[in-house]
Amino acid sequence: MAARLRPLLVDIHSHVYLPRYASLLRARKDVPRIFTRTNAAGAQEDRLVILTDEPTDQGRPVGPQYWDRQAKLQFMDQHGIDCSVISSANPWLDFLSASDAYETAQDLNRDLEEYCATSPAISSDVDPRGFKRLYGFGLLPLVPGISVDKIVDTVRQIEKLPHLRGIIIGTRGLGDGLDDDALDPVWEALEKARLVSFIHPHYGIGKEAWGKEQSHVLPLALGFPFETTIAITRMILAGVLDRHPNLRILLAHSGGVLPQLSSRLASCIAHDPVVASRLRHDARAYLGMLYYDAVAYGSAELAFVADVAKRGRSHLGITTASDDGTKRLLWGTDHPFFPPLEASEKWRSVVDNLDAIDGVETWNQSQKDAVRGGNAVDLFFADSE
Amino acid sequence: MAARLRPLLVDIHSHVYLPRYASLLRARKDVPRIFTRTNAAGAQEDRLVILTDEPTDQGRPVGPQYWDRQAKLQFMDQHGIDCSVISSANPWLDFLSASDAYETAQDLNRDLEEYCATSPAISSDVDPRGFKRLYGFGLLPLVPGISVDKIVDTVRQIEKLPHLRGIIIGTRGLGDGLDDDALDPVWEALEKARLVSFIHPHYGIGKEAWGKEQSHVLPLALGFPFETTIAITRMILAGVLDRHPNLRILLAHSGGVLPQLSSRLASCIAHDPVVASRLRHDARAYLGMLYYDAVAYGSAELAFVADVAKRGRSHLGITTASDDGTKRLLWGTDHPFFPPLEASEKWRSVVDNLDAIDGVETWNQSQKDAVRGGNAVDLFFADSE
Repeated sequence: MAARLRPLLVDIHSHVYLPRYASLLRARKDVPRIFTRTNAAGAQEDRLVILTDEPTDQGRPVGPQYWDRQAKLQFMDQHGIDCSVISSANPWLDFLSASDAYETAQDLNRDLEEYCATSPAISSDVDPRGFKRLYGFGLLPLVPGISVDKIVDTVRQIEKLPHLRGIIIGTRGLGDGLDDDALDPVWEALEKARLVSFIHPHYGIGKEAWGKEQSHVLPLALGFPFETTIAITRMILAGVLDRHPNLRILLAHSGGVLPQLSSRLASCIAHDPVVASRLRHDARAYLGMLYYDAVAYGSAELAFVADVAKRGRSHLGITTASDDGTKRLLWGTDHPFFPPLEASEKWRSVVDNLDAIDGVETWNQSQKDAVRGGNAVDLFFADSE
Repeated sequence: MAARLRPLLVDIHSHVYLPRYASLLRARKDVPRIFTRTNAAGAQEDRLVILTDEPTDQGRPVGPQYWDRQAKLQFMDQHGIDCSVISSANPWLDFLSASDAYETAQDLNRDLEEYCATSPAISSDVDPRGFKRLYGFGLLPLVPGISVDKIVDTVRQIEKLPHLRGIIIGTRGLGDGLDDDALDPVWEALEKARLVSFIHPHYGIGKEAWGKEQSHVLPLALGFPFETTIAITRMILAGVLDRHPNLRILLAHSGGVLPQLSSRLASCIAHDPVVASRLRHDARAYLGMLYYDAVAYGSAELAFVADVAKRGRSHLGITTASDDGTKRLLWGTDHPFFPPLEASEKWRSVVDNLDAIDGVETWNQSQKDAVRGGNAVDLFFADSE
């Protein structure tokens, strides 16, 4: 391994709507969609309507940050981000038919490979290993009615595209969730390919839960992490992690709330002999097999996630001193969502999530460096060095 | 204050179906219900069907642990529990009409007062302050269509019953949740009476979230804490805690997952100026106003909840050394739910939750004693000494 001049800052939670995908959204009348309207000042503005329960004619501002690679690199430069592992933003291909989804996934994966492959390299003054500044998570055509062969075929496609290092997936699978037995060949292919599977929410839970509160705060702050937690817990209960222990699953938003619920989950399972008997491990063990983005906006949260990851490793019988839980956390920004209120500001999602790492009192500098970038290098680029 | 001979063990999460309430359940054909069936061995057995989505003819075993005071005291003796603050188990009065709910609440509150008032005192060899072994949380007739006056009237009734020290409430309120403005007079009455409001889940979230998983693991392990989290977050967003900062709110199951989501919540609010402008504090501050049962089944979870409670206090500008977050945590068992699989065993819900306290590496003995009982004495009995 060549000497590094300084630790890298790597963003593993950074989204894009590639131009081909943005065109798909512009052609739609239903959510998700992008439409253009004339604003109060008489100017044309693009709006994105993305959440299932949003009115179709409001949405949020959307612009070059979402599709223009130059804007992404500029954002990275502004915040000192050396490298980003880019993923298509939700809701991916969920609104396409099975036949359209397959072709579109293949096209978008090639687009993203091109987007990354032609990106600048990290300056050798900073890191001599020749990494590009952009890598990517590919897309699978995970829609109802598609043949699993087509999905596995797309895993193989991604495996061969050198700048794609994983996949991003929502929680619906073929319509019955990620615990659907039919997906086993997909998990097997992902496991063999050593691709990282980034599980990301989109649907939250039913809007009736939010009562009269009309803002997006509840669906985003609670609904999103609930959805991720349900998805991974269903996978655990269905034995997906028992059958595929070498899957490299990365959970959005620091694992949702699985970290806070895993001991309760273990207790509920222990009181249900039928469920207990079909699982290989205590529920807490599985948290030691997972990876978590460090997008939790607080130091206490990050320290806690590392603690339960370490506890999970210990349940798995892995107790080496270097395997301290922080290795499972990887910094991210959720860019280009959560833009600053004033255009001149640094993005709070960046600053807060970096401050959160910096503020963990129990981590030393090398653990913090690892969460900021070293862990991402190990997980995504180990084979490139 | 008289000298104590040893720290008390106080269980603040312990349920009962009072005989009057059990009779109501026995008279029903729909969930919730208790019915009697002949089991495979030819014996009669009572079954409780409690969750909204359960089949009406299965349920779980139910017996004297649920309604017999002697069984409760025996359970307490077996586990060294000095004192329990008893609450009616879910779903409380939710299935009653407005007129029935008022009378039944008043009757059950008198029943519970009697249940506690006639319980033995804690031996003066253990603690000389003359505490009873049983105290209670009363019930409010919180059902659609009732007049708020009747609810406030019931708060006043509870206030006058000397062994009732709080209320237990579900999350539905009058049908529109606990963030319903119509409940403001109720919160005001509770605040003035200094009664503890124990917010407890029952409905979880819609069963479609659980996919093909048929056990109760997901609704109990995830749905319950999600429901509590939604309820308290909606209260925060609606300004209930801003208008009633002296409410003594106790959250079941260690606050659900509000602790893990409060920084994300703060970030989502910061990105929504409309919501941000209507709240008095950063979202994380409210966690310093709340109390949490220590029913989380793990040490890392408890340490984390204390950390975010302390952070909340700091956001509120309260940073005294003694106000370290552990003061907001109170041990509980969830008895008589989660019985042991073998009748002779100690209850795992007791042992695991005590082990969890014992295992927090960053707490000293006096903090652990406080979580096991001292905090409950301060919160519920301070006025009795």
